Amino acid sequence: MKRVLLTIEYDGSGFYGWQKQNGMRTVQGEVEKALAIVTGTECEVFASGRTDAGVHALGQTAHFDLNVPVPISKLADVLNSLLPDDISIKKAKYVEDDFHARFSIKRKCYEYKVYIGTRKQALKSRYQAWVKNPLDIDKMIKAGKMFLGKHNFQGYCASAATVSDYSRTIHDIRISKKGEMIIFEVEGSGFLYNMVRILVGTLVDIGRCKLTEKSAKEALDTQDRSKAGVTMPPNGLYLKWTKY
Amino acid sequence: MKRVLLTIEYDGSGFYGWQKQNGMRTVQGEVEKALAIVTGTECEVFASGRTDAGVHALGQTAHFDLNVPVPISKLADVLNSLLPDDISIKKAKYVEDDFHARFSIKRKCYEYKVYIGTRKQALKSRYQAWVKNPLDIDKMIKAGKMFLGKHNFQGYCASAATVSDYSRTIHDIRISKKGEMIIFEVEGSGFLYNMVRILVGTLVDIGRCKLTEKSAKEALDTQDRSKAGVTMPPNGLYLKWTKY
Repeated sequence: MKRVLLTIEYDGSGFYGWQKQNGMRTVQGEVEKALAIVTGTECEVFASGRTDAGVHALGQTAHFDLNVPVPISKLADVLNSLLPDDISIKKAKYVEDDFHARFSIKRKCYEYKVYIGTRKQALKSRYQAWVKNPLDIDKMIKAGKMFLGKHNFQGYCASAATVSDYSRTIHDIRISKKGEMIIFEVEGSGFLYNMVRILVGTLVDIGRCKLTEKSAKEALDTQDRSKAGVTMPPNGLYLKWTKY
Repeated sequence: MKRVLLTIEYDGSGFYGWQKQNGMRTVQGEVEKALAIVTGTECEVFASGRTDAGVHALGQTAHFDLNVPVPISKLADVLNSLLPDDISIKKAKYVEDDFHARFSIKRKCYEYKVYIGTRKQALKSRYQAWVKNPLDIDKMIKAGKMFLGKHNFQGYCASAATVSDYSRTIHDIRISKKGEMIIFEVEGSGFLYNMVRILVGTLVDIGRCKLTEKSAKEALDTQDRSKAGVTMPPNGLYLKWTKY
């Protein structure tokens, strides 16, 4: 038995998220199906974290235990030939037996794309959020600084999230403009349910003057979700990379 | 009553093609649904031509008769606000009462995108075809010239196509390389069922030395479909523009 770590790219728009669900098309389901063909047995895959329906990944990571002698250098190609077009294994490598894609993680980076413009972009609608009015980037960059460091982010997660510890560390937030696109990159130790989408939504609401920085700070200090901004839609979100 | 011509962009990957079908999500169905809300009555929309499931449009055109006094300058915005994210009305303008989006057409241009590379691109799989081996562009450009002008294209259409006249005129074929992408642009008077996908597939097969130019010429001269190349998948195809 050898533990293997996969780096996976997927287009989230055709999946009911990462996690296996009966009768639904999910990324985990498809990867496990391909692995079952390769290994001849059922094979459970553990990801760095779930992604929701519509959320994309450029570099999701997931581990599993390989019980057959497939050469590791060929594994990605073999899996890619079995997987549907909207999932791609970018890398496969051996890791230690006690490695865990979720629990061994040190850092994770999400990217969020917001298209700013009056013209509807039908052909890109699955891959970006859309805001019609210009956003004040300087204001967003300034406000973003409040999230850096370790905080209780209960005010910045979906109410469905039930965890024992709401504290997470944000290492960096970068906001940049590329043509009509504003790109948010959020790097942290880990994230609560919907946390990146609410963080970005709060910054967007500040950038379009729908919310004050003061209110966002209150949400952070008092864990009051109602003081933070909107939850952005899933289609603009990309799990960019993980670090172990 | 005023006849209106719409220019429409759509992401074909979420539709069972242009044409209305009971119980299926189609572009025509969605546009007519939005128009019914605006006009308060059923409203039939006539396109420049159907597109198949998975085929995209940057500039599909379609006409309908407007019976309510909605200002034409507002019509695109009103429709866009009612339409799903993957359909966008780019323009709405009045045309003559005897204008017909299909029968008045003079010229039409399709674009076909082929990604050349060994790396699977999961996040672009809905928007391009994928060929692993390099293509000989000069060979394809040279072979493409045989299609220019008026020909009987029965050897270059799906067998399901039943029309009385198989002759069509191709005005131009442009083949260019942009990074890892090869882009085919085909301009003509009109096209038979699957004709662009078979034309491009034939050139691709010539470009990867799976088919000779001689065989392609035979398909053109003798209307023998089996001498032409593969039918490319729908996802690389875009209806780019129409001219009246």
